[in-house]
Amino acid sequence: MSSQEPPFRNIAIAGLGLIGGSIALAIRERWSAVRIIGIDRQPVIAHALGSGAIDRGAGDASEASEADLVILAAPVRQNVVLLAELAQRLTSSTIVTDVGGTKRDIVSMAGSLPMAAAFVGGHPIGGAERGGFGFARPDLFKGRPWILTPDSRTPPQAVERLSAFITGLGARPSTLDADRHDRLMAYVSHLPQLTASALMDVIGSAAESEGLALAGRGLVDTTRLASSPPSTWVDICAVNADVLEGALEALIARLTELRADLRAGAVIHRVFDDAAHWRAELMKGRE
Amino acid sequence: MSSQEPPFRNIAIAGLGLIGGSIALAIRERWSAVRIIGIDRQPVIAHALGSGAIDRGAGDASEASEADLVILAAPVRQNVVLLAELAQRLTSSTIVTDVGGTKRDIVSMAGSLPMAAAFVGGHPIGGAERGGFGFARPDLFKGRPWILTPDSRTPPQAVERLSAFITGLGARPSTLDADRHDRLMAYVSHLPQLTASALMDVIGSAAESEGLALAGRGLVDTTRLASSPPSTWVDICAVNADVLEGALEALIARLTELRADLRAGAVIHRVFDDAAHWRAELMKGRE
Repeated sequence: MSSQEPPFRNIAIAGLGLIGGSIALAIRERWSAVRIIGIDRQPVIAHALGSGAIDRGAGDASEASEADLVILAAPVRQNVVLLAELAQRLTSSTIVTDVGGTKRDIVSMAGSLPMAAAFVGGHPIGGAERGGFGFARPDLFKGRPWILTPDSRTPPQAVERLSAFITGLGARPSTLDADRHDRLMAYVSHLPQLTASALMDVIGSAAESEGLALAGRGLVDTTRLASSPPSTWVDICAVNADVLEGALEALIARLTELRADLRAGAVIHRVFDDAAHWRAELMKGRE
Repeated sequence: MSSQEPPFRNIAIAGLGLIGGSIALAIRERWSAVRIIGIDRQPVIAHALGSGAIDRGAGDASEASEADLVILAAPVRQNVVLLAELAQRLTSSTIVTDVGGTKRDIVSMAGSLPMAAAFVGGHPIGGAERGGFGFARPDLFKGRPWILTPDSRTPPQAVERLSAFITGLGARPSTLDADRHDRLMAYVSHLPQLTASALMDVIGSAAESEGLALAGRGLVDTTRLASSPPSTWVDICAVNADVLEGALEALIARLTELRADLRAGAVIHRVFDDAAHWRAELMKGRE
């Protein structure tokens, strides 16, 4: 495996958090000869250089102009700004991708920019309990989906080359329309995150430490996402607000129905039966 | 350890689901000489007898009258009915407890019954992803809290003897007022259960199988409780409705605030920061 030619030789990663850092570590493990430039603030750069994850650090995205692959791995609204900054500095020999949890915003920005480089939106479905370079690991993407969102303007060779790269990191690349991506993610990713955080906040405020000490494994599982940092999510919520409003509305409506039915039980029965069905569907092919 | 005298010699368990079945298996492992009568419907009795978890099966709670410990382990409203049926058949040498997730209802019923036997409300905080005797295991209570809710009428010796029994099963007994128990559990147990089921129902209906296949570990964790059977929960919701209404109201209010703030982010910031604080508090002393 590791003797195979790397699809890219010079990779710039802007943002060395959990995802960007894990990509750097996974590249190292798969293709040791690839040169990696990391772009972030100083303490993060020092940490990444010290751990050997990157070859060179920079504080400014303009340093990415020599790379044949640029990966935007900052919070989603920052990625859009970085893309605009980089657009005119990159040549047609560069491919740009991102790893953000929303895709309509950056795909439409890429379409409107005068840019010689090819852009392919991307979203690795990994994630872990905690963010930041300190929690990065090379196997974060192993066996997990990595969605690409090319549109009619995207050169097919760019998608192919990026797919080879993603496969090399151990993930399973697939393609999806950006609109469809954002709608699905509002439900399977953004809504669970907002719910876990809201739930933990409400429960902690009411039960306090005494009550939390009496909680079983159920609460521990249900609120695992509640340690997520706000920075990533403030951006995702803003960018995907239109779809997320509907998703939150649907959950609020279901909880309101349950609240009205506590003494009767018919809605509880229906919701629990449906939920058990979808839970079994979710678990197909996992574990 | 296993040479120590068992606190009870003749134990009846009404309801051989996950909890009742696990108690039977834990007794077996700890005190092999204790006689266990299991009360349930026929297919469950046959399964429990076949696995050696019980010595004798019965379809009727009246068979419990010779036991020195009666454990009510059916859904909570059924436990109240069983207690009323048994009250006059039991002598002062019997202790009755239950394992239900709500305590005010059964404690107040016990107080109003003409009953020679002592009643001590109980609630083991164990739980697992799936219910039923098939998922019962002897270590379900190991290291977990087991709350007892004695009131002013409860003989202290009954609490002591039951605590010795619970300690023998590997759990950590503690006492709590029934009102306080129900209020805390509405938040740390019942609200997460309703939320996980409502969330899975809403997400499954919107994303369907295609979307669920793209979900990460976050959704898998957040909805682990969504495979819970409705039977247990219809009862708990009915009995604890007054407190649960307030808990659901608080969550609905928080989600409504988040929905209104998606584009701005100030509420998201505050809720995520508070949630991360309570999550850290929840995890203290675990893992």
